[in-house]
Amino acid sequence: MNKEDYVLEGERLDDLQRNGLHIIQDPADFCFGMDAVLLCGFVSEHQNVRNGKLLDLCTGNGIIPLLLSAKTDADSIVGIELRHKAADMATRSVKLNKLENRIKIVEGDIKQAADLITAASFDIVTVNPPYFKSGHGIVNPDDSKTIARHEVACSLEDVLREAKKALKENGLFYMVHKPQRLVDIFSLMREEGIEPKTLKVVYPDRTSPPNMVLIEGRKGSGAELKIEEPLFIYKEDRTYSLEINTIYGY
Amino acid sequence: MNKEDYVLEGERLDDLQRNGLHIIQDPADFCFGMDAVLLCGFVSEHQNVRNGKLLDLCTGNGIIPLLLSAKTDADSIVGIELRHKAADMATRSVKLNKLENRIKIVEGDIKQAADLITAASFDIVTVNPPYFKSGHGIVNPDDSKTIARHEVACSLEDVLREAKKALKENGLFYMVHKPQRLVDIFSLMREEGIEPKTLKVVYPDRTSPPNMVLIEGRKGSGAELKIEEPLFIYKEDRTYSLEINTIYGY
Repeated sequence: MNKEDYVLEGERLDDLQRNGLHIIQDPADFCFGMDAVLLCGFVSEHQNVRNGKLLDLCTGNGIIPLLLSAKTDADSIVGIELRHKAADMATRSVKLNKLENRIKIVEGDIKQAADLITAASFDIVTVNPPYFKSGHGIVNPDDSKTIARHEVACSLEDVLREAKKALKENGLFYMVHKPQRLVDIFSLMREEGIEPKTLKVVYPDRTSPPNMVLIEGRKGSGAELKIEEPLFIYKEDRTYSLEINTIYGY
Repeated sequence: MNKEDYVLEGERLDDLQRNGLHIIQDPADFCFGMDAVLLCGFVSEHQNVRNGKLLDLCTGNGIIPLLLSAKTDADSIVGIELRHKAADMATRSVKLNKLENRIKIVEGDIKQAADLITAASFDIVTVNPPYFKSGHGIVNPDDSKTIARHEVACSLEDVLREAKKALKENGLFYMVHKPQRLVDIFSLMREEGIEPKTLKVVYPDRTSPPNMVLIEGRKGSGAELKIEEPLFIYKEDRTYSLEINTIYGY
């Protein structure tokens, strides 16, 4: 089969510009953004697990498992996705990239993750979760986008509780989120025993408030946070910064 | 009396370069740093209390009350300091600047602040507390510097508990601290009911990790953090940034 044979009507095949990887996306569905790409860059800079097991919660169309298959040496990557349409696209993307031996997409609710995966078996858990509290923000009437952006199906508490269950002791947790939730994130991570260890604040440019935060936590670790040098998306001439180009692999 | 008449042997009189203010410092004691100045700049940018009451915990030689007498319109500023030597210098600095009608220095332990000040009576509480956990960091054998830098006499928990008692409902809390304590700070502030509302991350320059965080909290507020645009201390040519020169009033 050719790669194109995995693509259904209305979908498109996007080149990930890395290791020849491609991903199936549906423009009418939720498509991945810079946040997923920056999270993968942050993981690959920090993780030092060789041949380890990695779990991606709320995996959507599988962008994070696909990119991390290229950017890490994890030999087993599991992605869990609630929505059938997204899980189906992710499964086909894994097949068309011939990554079935490294990536497994599981369709199901992360709140029942304990039934879907083995507890305390993962070296790394990653997540690009819904950012907004249910009932807050502009709710998109399109259900797939609402589920991806709002905590209607999965709250921050759900994510952290299931991440904790899935992680081995001393396992690493990586999340991208919005700055306005940082107090919730730090408080809840500490409550769940995943201590925040590294924070990178992502600013659009040198004179603007940040629009993303990248967080690394470690299950069972002691308290001490490292805030890293800032990450700027744009230079003053509005072209991408060197860091962004490096993460994208240009 | 001349200003110089208030200065004892071994001490010096420093010009604060603002409103003709001067401060007595003892080079053998703990002298104020950029952190206190940046905290005052952060307070004056944010507070909107007119003719209000302001309390500075761990006030040392009184740098924060002195600067905030110029940078805010608070009509009553109380500074609490444990060490007699520092409280005595602060008291003399208030007198030599003829600010007795606006600033009162109280010698005492903030853990007994309830005996020294009226509960729930302050619009604003500020603090530049000891940064390091007792037993961590390089402990200075000089006692005054140890007390100023390490939580031997006053922990973050003490600071937040007493700040909460002193603040009116909806009162504002301002603190400068080290990035590595940010998880402790956010978790403890929320526990004490002083919700973190604004965070400014202070970076030495555009390619280095931060060395300070400035935090605004509000007693009894709901959850939602605003992270502001970054503050850089130096430009690329290693001279002070425009923001730093503005805060210093140059």
